[in-house]
Amino acid sequence: MHINRSSTHHVWDRTIAPVAEIASGTELTVDTVEASGGQLTPDSTAADVAGLDFDRVNPVTGPFLVPGARPGDALAVDILEMSVGGWGWTACIPGFGLLAEDFTEPRLRISTIAEGHAELLPGLRIPVVPMVGTIGVAPPENGPHSMVPPRRWGGNMDIRHLGPGARLLLPVGVPGALLSLGDTHAAMGDGEVAGTGVETDGSVRLRVTLLPGAAPVTPVLETDPRTHRSGRALATTGIGPDLMTASRDAVRALVDEVVRRTGLAPADAYLLASVAADLKISELVDAPNWVVSAHLELALLDG
Amino acid sequence: MHINRSSTHHVWDRTIAPVAEIASGTELTVDTVEASGGQLTPDSTAADVAGLDFDRVNPVTGPFLVPGARPGDALAVDILEMSVGGWGWTACIPGFGLLAEDFTEPRLRISTIAEGHAELLPGLRIPVVPMVGTIGVAPPENGPHSMVPPRRWGGNMDIRHLGPGARLLLPVGVPGALLSLGDTHAAMGDGEVAGTGVETDGSVRLRVTLLPGAAPVTPVLETDPRTHRSGRALATTGIGPDLMTASRDAVRALVDEVVRRTGLAPADAYLLASVAADLKISELVDAPNWVVSAHLELALLDG
Repeated sequence: MHINRSSTHHVWDRTIAPVAEIASGTELTVDTVEASGGQLTPDSTAADVAGLDFDRVNPVTGPFLVPGARPGDALAVDILEMSVGGWGWTACIPGFGLLAEDFTEPRLRISTIAEGHAELLPGLRIPVVPMVGTIGVAPPENGPHSMVPPRRWGGNMDIRHLGPGARLLLPVGVPGALLSLGDTHAAMGDGEVAGTGVETDGSVRLRVTLLPGAAPVTPVLETDPRTHRSGRALATTGIGPDLMTASRDAVRALVDEVVRRTGLAPADAYLLASVAADLKISELVDAPNWVVSAHLELALLDG
Repeated sequence: MHINRSSTHHVWDRTIAPVAEIASGTELTVDTVEASGGQLTPDSTAADVAGLDFDRVNPVTGPFLVPGARPGDALAVDILEMSVGGWGWTACIPGFGLLAEDFTEPRLRISTIAEGHAELLPGLRIPVVPMVGTIGVAPPENGPHSMVPPRRWGGNMDIRHLGPGARLLLPVGVPGALLSLGDTHAAMGDGEVAGTGVETDGSVRLRVTLLPGAAPVTPVLETDPRTHRSGRALATTGIGPDLMTASRDAVRALVDEVVRRTGLAPADAYLLASVAADLKISELVDAPNWVVSAHLELALLDG
């Protein structure tokens, strides 16, 4: 089964008619649209970012009805294979992102994607580690629900490890489950700090298996080693009593350090962090101060 | 130069007399005491954990005076080599740790450390990835400061990546810097969720270099690939508007999942998470909900 990217929706809603039925155990290929929903192209500029219609962002392909699925069951989604488009976009969108107060101007970078790399800036090649940003099932509560926040039912979780080889367990919220996915990335850092990865069209081959009565409280993953990074890294820290503030401080420090080492514009360093840095909670038990660290492979700064 | 573990102190205080002077560029070996400061032994029980005197915990060896260091400078600390003791302890200490409300009883596990592994439970061997939990310089503010929270000046940061091959940049707060270190771990997970790793004596060979005028705002690291893990992992999530709550939810879910898969006691699963799981901020931009994920190598559950 192959579902193309014309079958999308822009909100979660249990009343949206399914585009296909997939029996438990079925393998299917799902084409996905990049997160602007066609509003951005390789020729777009920062002005187009400022004019993005948020009612059209983050389309997902689906929903897929799984016969027999009921609330209390789990859907196991194995991501078997995945390809991404030939270009991608990464943007700083005013009012959006971890450091929205620092970076108030729109900014857009178009990457060419080829030979396993996305070229975010001339000569700055990010290894492609494809992943699915948004995957989830219809919430049981009536009415439309925004595509932006993730929920117990999955959705826009932006977990970097949801790529080929990963298995995702989602709780089923409504009869038939109504699975949808989209928001594919060629690369993204833990935290997606600027709010975007390398946003690109994708094609995802997956297998869906129904596990009766096995609903987890929140989504559970098994990750694949390909989504781990292992090179020598630069790591900066934020230290204080609030994890969000500490996260901001860590990312600010990373941006400053990258700028100091490379001469990149701060906003470009911020985008680089968004697609290639990992936000880790290093410590949250030594009251009253917690440590968040932001890690970036040093090899990315050598270019 | 070799400093043994009798030269310790229990608070940060700029008036503590230095145990040695180390010129910039010096290599030295520093022996450190496990975090109970000798209160626990391989024969200790959970009752001893409940009776821990917190005024004696987390001793650090030092301070070391770096001639010429002044506020505004940075100390670069290269961790060249590190060994750990033959045993270690991991505890659930009432009132302490991310899930203190869930785990109210003291619990203690003594690990034998040999052949590159710490045996946390019979047959459950955690790869030794040695690291320094506490390393910092004297704060400029007068008076004693608790050893527990990390600060701008470093201290009890518990960053898993501070092991052999790592470089740490600390801001200098007082003339002479007054560097101290301790709280060595044979293994620890990002987040140190239960509040302890595999706590053990250590011996750390390091080189200290003074970098005039280079003080970072908060500590900066360069990590070594040996402190990255790369196997297939189980990952659980916490999703919601507060990072701390999401962290708790992710760790609760990990504990539940490990218990379900292995039959371990929940408190043991919690300790396992503390020494081997990584807390990552997967997403903190998709308002209003953030995602924290807790990752544990599946190989650890095969035993």
